Amino acid sequence: MAVQTAAPTTPSGTPSVDLGPAAGLSCRECGERFPLGPIFACAHCFGPLEVAYDLPAGDPEQLRKRIESGPASIWRYAPLLPVPADVADKPNLNPGWTPLVKADNLARELGVTGGLYVKDDSGNPTHSFKDRVVAQALEAARAFGFTTLSCSSTGNLAGAVGAAAARAGLRSCVFIPHDLEQGKVVMAAVYGGDLVGIEGTYDDVNRFCSELIGDPLGEGWGFVNVNLRPYYAEGSKTLAYEICEQLGWRLPDQIVVPIASGSQLTKIDKGLRELIALGLVEDRPYKIFGAQAEGCSPVSAAFKAGHDVVRPQKPDTIAKSLAIGNPADGPYVLDIARRTGGAVEDVDDARIVDAIKLLARTEGIFAETAGGVTVGVTRKLIETGALDPALTTVVLNTGDGLKTLDAVAPTTGPTTTIRPSLDAFRDAGLAH
Amino acid sequence: MAVQTAAPTTPSGTPSVDLGPAAGLSCRECGERFPLGPIFACAHCFGPLEVAYDLPAGDPEQLRKRIESGPASIWRYAPLLPVPADVADKPNLNPGWTPLVKADNLARELGVTGGLYVKDDSGNPTHSFKDRVVAQALEAARAFGFTTLSCSSTGNLAGAVGAAAARAGLRSCVFIPHDLEQGKVVMAAVYGGDLVGIEGTYDDVNRFCSELIGDPLGEGWGFVNVNLRPYYAEGSKTLAYEICEQLGWRLPDQIVVPIASGSQLTKIDKGLRELIALGLVEDRPYKIFGAQAEGCSPVSAAFKAGHDVVRPQKPDTIAKSLAIGNPADGPYVLDIARRTGGAVEDVDDARIVDAIKLLARTEGIFAETAGGVTVGVTRKLIETGALDPALTTVVLNTGDGLKTLDAVAPTTGPTTTIRPSLDAFRDAGLAH
Repeated sequence: MAVQTAAPTTPSGTPSVDLGPAAGLSCRECGERFPLGPIFACAHCFGPLEVAYDLPAGDPEQLRKRIESGPASIWRYAPLLPVPADVADKPNLNPGWTPLVKADNLARELGVTGGLYVKDDSGNPTHSFKDRVVAQALEAARAFGFTTLSCSSTGNLAGAVGAAAARAGLRSCVFIPHDLEQGKVVMAAVYGGDLVGIEGTYDDVNRFCSELIGDPLGEGWGFVNVNLRPYYAEGSKTLAYEICEQLGWRLPDQIVVPIASGSQLTKIDKGLRELIALGLVEDRPYKIFGAQAEGCSPVSAAFKAGHDVVRPQKPDTIAKSLAIGNPADGPYVLDIARRTGGAVEDVDDARIVDAIKLLARTEGIFAETAGGVTVGVTRKLIETGALDPALTTVVLNTGDGLKTLDAVAPTTGPTTTIRPSLDAFRDAGLAH
Repeated sequence: MAVQTAAPTTPSGTPSVDLGPAAGLSCRECGERFPLGPIFACAHCFGPLEVAYDLPAGDPEQLRKRIESGPASIWRYAPLLPVPADVADKPNLNPGWTPLVKADNLARELGVTGGLYVKDDSGNPTHSFKDRVVAQALEAARAFGFTTLSCSSTGNLAGAVGAAAARAGLRSCVFIPHDLEQGKVVMAAVYGGDLVGIEGTYDDVNRFCSELIGDPLGEGWGFVNVNLRPYYAEGSKTLAYEICEQLGWRLPDQIVVPIASGSQLTKIDKGLRELIALGLVEDRPYKIFGAQAEGCSPVSAAFKAGHDVVRPQKPDTIAKSLAIGNPADGPYVLDIARRTGGAVEDVDDARIVDAIKLLARTEGIFAETAGGVTVGVTRKLIETGALDPALTTVVLNTGDGLKTLDAVAPTTGPTTTIRPSLDAFRDAGLAH
């Protein structure tokens, strides 16, 4: 991905930037501060930029009440996000405030006694957590005067961008590999924006997008996870906020998060630390665990080897929404897992499928392969002793099984097939 | 469907029945009352039974406050539903409280000036409104001591029953035609209950289920839409409750509802009348419109012909979730449409597809074919003058486009396919 240190794509006539409590961007490596803008890398050290805030000071009880009386969406946390105060009044998909399911049946199967919860993000408008991050990018795009919302994607992100742009009345243009399966193409194209097939691999698509951002052809374009990435990424904080509020303003002891780029895990940690700093939850230890598929486990491999750097891998797994072989935030994930006393673990494709079916059978939640990864890793972490079953544990499901039917199709079918007669039914032995 | 007038399937040792405000069952034809039980037809006139209530009397403002402080699910309306007061504490999918989307972009396209809203039920746990009705049937099943939750289905209902039973820790056994498409089989089977393929048509499956209910083999079985139907059907009232509460405790002027059996439309009317009777909304006129696919439009045909009875049709439409050729509640739908000054209309498959894409393009909502029917019919009703665009209008989307990808796949694809180069992109004419 091309490093971009200035803001050449800001269209002329950009309105004054109001992104609520967002006070600027700061470099995660050297700490240098920059004004808010569509930039994502430090001009000095090329480190990644993230949003720095002037967070609301004052009585935590009042802030809790303000949040609780807010809308049933991520916008209840608008005072903690890089969005204008009136964000809920603008046309957007209003994602979030998804169920935190007390998973007692799954807990029994896994031997968890301290309380097990599934944060089920499949209820979001386009059925993945991507709606949370795209909603932030949309506000940044509006603030910077962008007229086209864009991304490269092979799945969830394409739908989230297309749907958000449609609701907001922006144009969208999404880039995909030309040979994507038809079902995924339909999900990306149905929102009516432009969808461009690129003759090449997903890496080719990304390289092309990076060129486009640096070219006058891309003027006025907000690539949600490139030039709007610092804002986009903040959306994952809302998972941390919701989990704590839904637990009664309490930190979970343990939380299991899928790793693609690693961004989500780092932002969940950031969100938890903000809640502590604001006095919204009691400060006590929590452990963050990262979950990968064995077929794309660069962070898990580095964690187990005791390394600080992540060696890229060539992905080969059914968990395609997590298949990033060179995860940008890998080193930060390693830091957080080690600092909090968590771990990073991986499971193979067979265990991913088993875990999808386990979650469906016990809790009636049909997860995407990424959900199979977190549930499968949770089970493995209990087996290895890394995760304490006596502590309160939250497992993330970030997507929807309807989008990855192929993963379970080969092993999921009718119990039996019979003639339409009571005799045939009796013989089948199911009448109990 | 076999008429059942007694309660032979009640297992021995049934606990005393606590279904909250449900006071009994009453015949919709002759008014005869029966105690709560797993029965669905009047012993005297064979008319359909429905739940009769002792609804809470008292100050509407207090009841509104009580509801508003309840959970973000249908259980906020537990005082108005046939469920025990502690229903939210029992394991269930907690469906409902789905978004009422202010559809300003769609309104512009359709010329609606009085306020257009889409009640988007695709955010339910299994992504259709069926979660609302199955949740009621589940409570009835628990109250009557049933141990197996069952249904016949070709789609949404199978998943809703499988998931609800899984969460509740009940067994499920779902019957489907043996030749269902693999994707639908996977969605029905993934929750781990028994799934039985029946060699025959969907009608054969239904006939078999009716036999099973009357046979000792079916003892302890709750068929959600047969012997639990009176309870099940009440779940659709929650759509009316939510719409009014989300409008600020106000009746919509016009509401467009899809028609399969017609039950949903009749229960929405019942829900609206209850809100008026309880003083929760101001009593003023509202119009209910029914929407069908042209390829299965028996109620629309009867409405247009001025008939009181519905002549069965053989369905042939892409809107399979609405394809009931002999809708049980058709005559009641005709009554309601005429009484309220509404209408029943139908659209052909091409207009259904267009409407799905229109809704996706304008509001970022990807609807099932049933949603294409309601949006398409809304457009047609405006064209014919039956629906007044100057009035507040609510259109229901009861399902999810991910479940009917085939409907839009032939006409939904990339704008273009190019080589990964800026020159190729410039030539494609998309850089604006």
